[in-house]
Amino acid sequence: MVFFNKKQIEDLHHLYRANLINSCSGYKSANLIGTRSAEGISNVAIFSSVMHLGSDPALLGFILRPATVIRNTYDNIKKTKYYTINHIHQEILADAHHTSAKYDQEISEFDMTDLSEIFLEDFFAPFVNRAPVKIGLKFLEEYVINANQTILVIGEIHNIYIDKELLEVDGFVNLSKGRIASINGLDGYSIPELKVRMEYQLPKISGSLIP
Amino acid sequence: MVFFNKKQIEDLHHLYRANLINSCSGYKSANLIGTRSAEGISNVAIFSSVMHLGSDPALLGFILRPATVIRNTYDNIKKTKYYTINHIHQEILADAHHTSAKYDQEISEFDMTDLSEIFLEDFFAPFVNRAPVKIGLKFLEEYVINANQTILVIGEIHNIYIDKELLEVDGFVNLSKGRIASINGLDGYSIPELKVRMEYQLPKISGSLIP
Repeated sequence: MVFFNKKQIEDLHHLYRANLINSCSGYKSANLIGTRSAEGISNVAIFSSVMHLGSDPALLGFILRPATVIRNTYDNIKKTKYYTINHIHQEILADAHHTSAKYDQEISEFDMTDLSEIFLEDFFAPFVNRAPVKIGLKFLEEYVINANQTILVIGEIHNIYIDKELLEVDGFVNLSKGRIASINGLDGYSIPELKVRMEYQLPKISGSLIP
Repeated sequence: MVFFNKKQIEDLHHLYRANLINSCSGYKSANLIGTRSAEGISNVAIFSSVMHLGSDPALLGFILRPATVIRNTYDNIKKTKYYTINHIHQEILADAHHTSAKYDQEISEFDMTDLSEIFLEDFFAPFVNRAPVKIGLKFLEEYVINANQTILVIGEIHNIYIDKELLEVDGFVNLSKGRIASINGLDGYSIPELKVRMEYQLPKISGSLIP
């Protein structure tokens, strides 16, 4: 195996290190976060850090880089409280990835790509039109990570829209039926196929199955 | 599309809600976290919440459920500071999933499965022998999430071991070459194939490519 220790990681070229560390943690979610400024300008940006935090209450988190760069998503969420998480799927892969380009706040990424926005019910933030899973959230709390000033943003789920064919009888959302993407590192994309659903596990009784 | 609002989500049967909310955030990483108690008993447990937090310094985080259940992983990390993150791959899928069973602290999951532990360099915690990516970390800090008492545990990467054939010339770790798993919800597993690596994105100049 190839080995890197802490010192060697620190001494790597910054682009090599960014690829290595971003891809060494495993597969990541692939989402577009939609927001709208107080002035009514929509914003949509790709994130690979959306995470499950709890089911009851239903909470999702995501990680934002330090506040030193332009972050329309963060500013809009802090001002307006509402945002949407929309799953990236095969058809919109290239446009979704393009939202990582840095546009000024007065430009909507919806105007610069073939992604289209849709407003559902009376939710303030825009959803992404063709996304097979669309989630509307309200900002709840945030944590600034002391070690590197990234921000964990936590929201509570208010609305979920799921394409009918993805939803199974026990509530399982079959992501592979929506051709939903997973991210490897900074720029690698997969469209995974579901291989197996495992059973709930109980401890083995050592030695014998008869107690 | 099927629609759920906040009230409807709260009123779902708890198992249906657990499946729905755990699988609605997108694909998750699939890792075994290895620890060792102060008494020298090894522990290994499956986690789907390992996340990238930063490359410089190289930091990973993961989420633990509230402190009301037995959590050998957390207790060991807090007492001994060191732990390992090992990628789940096709060959060890069933055994990896079995580590979700609740064993008492005096039982090592390495003894109850075909997973085998390996100690590398002088690192305190055990690595998982056949994992194509193995990461040794030192505990750095933790955040208790106010909304549901889950804990975000953050560690700094000290050692990384990567199977040679996964590592590309620019530092990209090609997870699909290691048949590494991705998790959908609580119990769904995929072994994704890399589809494409995209280019770094610059803003489009609207109207014309000539400024």
